[in-house]
Amino acid sequence: MAIDPSAVGSTGGPVERSWTSKDCLLYALGVGSGLDELRFTTEKNQQVLPTTVVVLGARGAVPMQKIGSFNPAMLVHGEQAIELARPLPPDGTVQTTGKIAAVYDKGKGAVVVSETEARDAKTNELMWTTRSSAFIRGAGGFGGERGPSGPINEPPARKADHEVTYRTLPEQALLYRLSGDRNPLHSDPEFARVAGFQRPILHGLCTYGFTGRALLHTLCGSDPARFKSMAGRFSKPVFPGEALTISMWVDGQVCVFQTRNEAGETVIDQGRMTFG
Amino acid sequence: MAIDPSAVGSTGGPVERSWTSKDCLLYALGVGSGLDELRFTTEKNQQVLPTTVVVLGARGAVPMQKIGSFNPAMLVHGEQAIELARPLPPDGTVQTTGKIAAVYDKGKGAVVVSETEARDAKTNELMWTTRSSAFIRGAGGFGGERGPSGPINEPPARKADHEVTYRTLPEQALLYRLSGDRNPLHSDPEFARVAGFQRPILHGLCTYGFTGRALLHTLCGSDPARFKSMAGRFSKPVFPGEALTISMWVDGQVCVFQTRNEAGETVIDQGRMTFG
Repeated sequence: MAIDPSAVGSTGGPVERSWTSKDCLLYALGVGSGLDELRFTTEKNQQVLPTTVVVLGARGAVPMQKIGSFNPAMLVHGEQAIELARPLPPDGTVQTTGKIAAVYDKGKGAVVVSETEARDAKTNELMWTTRSSAFIRGAGGFGGERGPSGPINEPPARKADHEVTYRTLPEQALLYRLSGDRNPLHSDPEFARVAGFQRPILHGLCTYGFTGRALLHTLCGSDPARFKSMAGRFSKPVFPGEALTISMWVDGQVCVFQTRNEAGETVIDQGRMTFG
Repeated sequence: MAIDPSAVGSTGGPVERSWTSKDCLLYALGVGSGLDELRFTTEKNQQVLPTTVVVLGARGAVPMQKIGSFNPAMLVHGEQAIELARPLPPDGTVQTTGKIAAVYDKGKGAVVVSETEARDAKTNELMWTTRSSAFIRGAGGFGGERGPSGPINEPPARKADHEVTYRTLPEQALLYRLSGDRNPLHSDPEFARVAGFQRPILHGLCTYGFTGRALLHTLCGSDPARFKSMAGRFSKPVFPGEALTISMWVDGQVCVFQTRNEAGETVIDQGRMTFG
């Protein structure tokens, strides 16, 4: 595995991607929306969860091949940020472009930061941008920059202003994966064991979706138009069936948040969300 | 509303209908399959629940317009029978033909019995047949035959040979409806109240799917190839979140069954299933 730092700046796309009302309903159920969120789980006056953009990513828009060869099984999702330029319609088509924004050498592994931008296929209006970082185990030592480190978005030293607990279903990963990420780590007990887990783990982005719901309902009055951006770092795995507790510290229109699993371990840290 | 009994014998179709592996996974989750049924809920060595055929019905194959005008809101699903000629593949395409098999005048309403037959679009092999009856409230009195009545498939006077209890989810109807039946009776509290229910009710065919799973796992060793036919009558509504208990009385390769809700009321009666 040889990572090529000169890949930084490489761009890809545009790749076209369409979605339907049904895709959004399935995603909403996949991240735990239910009877209390009928505007998100039925087509009547349908609204779309802002975090749905993470499953509308266009494969191929980010030119990952430019960073060199690596084993996809060694790739772990590190951070995920999204920024919504406008609320998502239940049906839509976007053109997505992507780029390699940064490559860092962490010694034990490499961090690849990628960005995408999605524009309405008809109007060319900006719809959303995303920024994700992937940690590739065993791919460090190529002599690149170490990159930023140290904690960011730390909660202030006071009790959280809001706390919301949602229980995931034992079947949550089976449902969430129908929105696109069929990695068997989330469904196949044998595969999960080989990867070092007692049983399949929940998708980090499913936890991200539960967290986004808590932020949306608590801080935006459930109105997706008020949800501007969300970023967080995946710090521990979650098992399907666990309860998730989202703690929020609000300062004006910025919220710092953390998500904890049932054991009280932080599973998403360095969380930051903005709203209007 | 005037029912025309001369509609009996009218045929429709063929109508082509395709499905995908994802459709079958979504259906399986919709009828409660989960972590213990990974062959039905993931694409690894995927198998398909026999009752999936009820959502693969081809709209338009049965010429319902031939029976005259009626208010669709007055239509209640009465009975549903399916017969599998071979196990369903995870992906497939069929040509479906349908007919009006019988029309009965029950006084208070009309019963319309329809049948469909689905054949593989490539090989023309018979895949399955279905037979359903719909009760149309307020549409009786047109002077037709009363049709068969009285109990059939009554359980013998002994304790059931097998009993299986499955709990439905509060979100079960929201999930099941993504397989196609978007009737708001199953999702919209206001619509359900107007129809006389405290809250949305579960799809009868969702209860049918839970029941089919119990029969498949108990009597067929979970092997869809051994599941030959299933018939039952919807006798009471079920609310999402209720537990369902399926009682089975077996005689050779025939099983008489009943499904009860949490209050012990029979919600599917006159059940009969055959297996090999």
